[in-house]
Amino acid sequence: MPLLDVCFTPELIHLYELKGRVVVVVDILRATSSMVTGLAHGLEKIIPVSTLAECQEWAKHGYLTAAERDGQKAEGFDLGNSPFSYMEDFVKGKTLAMTTTNGTHAIRLSEAADQVVVGAFLNVSSVAAYLAKQQKDVLVVCAGWKGKFNLEDTLFAGALAHKLQGSFTFENDATLASSHLYAAAQNDLMHFLSTASHVQRLQNLHIIKDIAFCLQPDVYDIVPILEGDFLVPYTPESVKNLA
Amino acid sequence: MPLLDVCFTPELIHLYELKGRVVVVVDILRATSSMVTGLAHGLEKIIPVSTLAECQEWAKHGYLTAAERDGQKAEGFDLGNSPFSYMEDFVKGKTLAMTTTNGTHAIRLSEAADQVVVGAFLNVSSVAAYLAKQQKDVLVVCAGWKGKFNLEDTLFAGALAHKLQGSFTFENDATLASSHLYAAAQNDLMHFLSTASHVQRLQNLHIIKDIAFCLQPDVYDIVPILEGDFLVPYTPESVKNLA
Repeated sequence: MPLLDVCFTPELIHLYELKGRVVVVVDILRATSSMVTGLAHGLEKIIPVSTLAECQEWAKHGYLTAAERDGQKAEGFDLGNSPFSYMEDFVKGKTLAMTTTNGTHAIRLSEAADQVVVGAFLNVSSVAAYLAKQQKDVLVVCAGWKGKFNLEDTLFAGALAHKLQGSFTFENDATLASSHLYAAAQNDLMHFLSTASHVQRLQNLHIIKDIAFCLQPDVYDIVPILEGDFLVPYTPESVKNLA
Repeated sequence: MPLLDVCFTPELIHLYELKGRVVVVVDILRATSSMVTGLAHGLEKIIPVSTLAECQEWAKHGYLTAAERDGQKAEGFDLGNSPFSYMEDFVKGKTLAMTTTNGTHAIRLSEAADQVVVGAFLNVSSVAAYLAKQQKDVLVVCAGWKGKFNLEDTLFAGALAHKLQGSFTFENDATLASSHLYAAAQNDLMHFLSTASHVQRLQNLHIIKDIAFCLQPDVYDIVPILEGDFLVPYTPESVKNLA
């Protein structure tokens, strides 16, 4: 049986084997939730980049740009990090260069893996179905907050563990902890997270609506997969053809 | 109100402020449990060292030596890492040089803190009482396992959070997670930990008796505090005089 493991922050990624594994990068609030939303709403592809300067470079190629720092949209970019802005008509058929405080960095650090996919509550069941088909060891890489552990990404890892129970082993402490925390939280994620540091940070920015949206399971069925430099959306149908 | 925070592994310690804080180092299985046991049974002081070679050096000064690597007693040292060996009569009045896979390293990395104390379930209430008196910000540094998160040290952090509720704030995700996990585990720590990776590793080494001992709360009332290079035992009485 393949293994499911969880890396709580990109700062610990050097301790994990990436080769031969599928990495699921998660940044619930809000990078990977927004990526899934945009690709589900017709965005063609996303290039995750690490710096604001690099992101601006891509504007010259006709790409849309998205940049968030410390929970706020950065000046001079088309989009911030609110999933609602990724539903707009003007994203359809476009390529987006995107940089965020934690999420895009985590994707770049995971590139040595056999495959990198993007997870969120919004597409959790599709990600689980995709992983179950691959039958490879999986590492969930939580984006965390500036190198530290965070609760919302951990709860996603726990939700994934619950869905993969029986077809994956997860006898490692990080996955066990994630699974126990999800069991305690699943009936009301919002309430459970209400004291979490990042949620409080975002509440101060008046984006409770964003948080509520990002905590919904299975709004979309696409799985963003990294192909070369770009995240492209796989539908359940195209995933079936892959496997 | 002072802050309680938790660093899940020494690999993340650079992300935390140490100056102005009291650090509680914890390595439940079994370094800090054995330290508390030894100092409660008459060991005079302990010098935590990082390498086997350094530990051997101290034998020349007439110190007892203790060394554990990968859960086993290292060849040529007086003691390993089983708390029962720290109860023997021959430790009384002695100084011990000690090196373990994770625990002693965590202590050395924490030295920039205002104070470093050693915690275990065996002395959890005394540590909590000591911290409550200090009224300084506290960081629990979990020794983890080879840089990764582990459950048993996290449960100790959660137990401490439960005891300090009301007199410390802990609105950070690591402390919240620790506290939730402890709430789920507290009625039967052994059962909760039975699937944990380190417990399984130790069970393979046939030291279930050690584990059961290390999970008992409040067997001892001393608090080991780092003074210069040495951990010395503070009793409730001497702590009272300190404060």
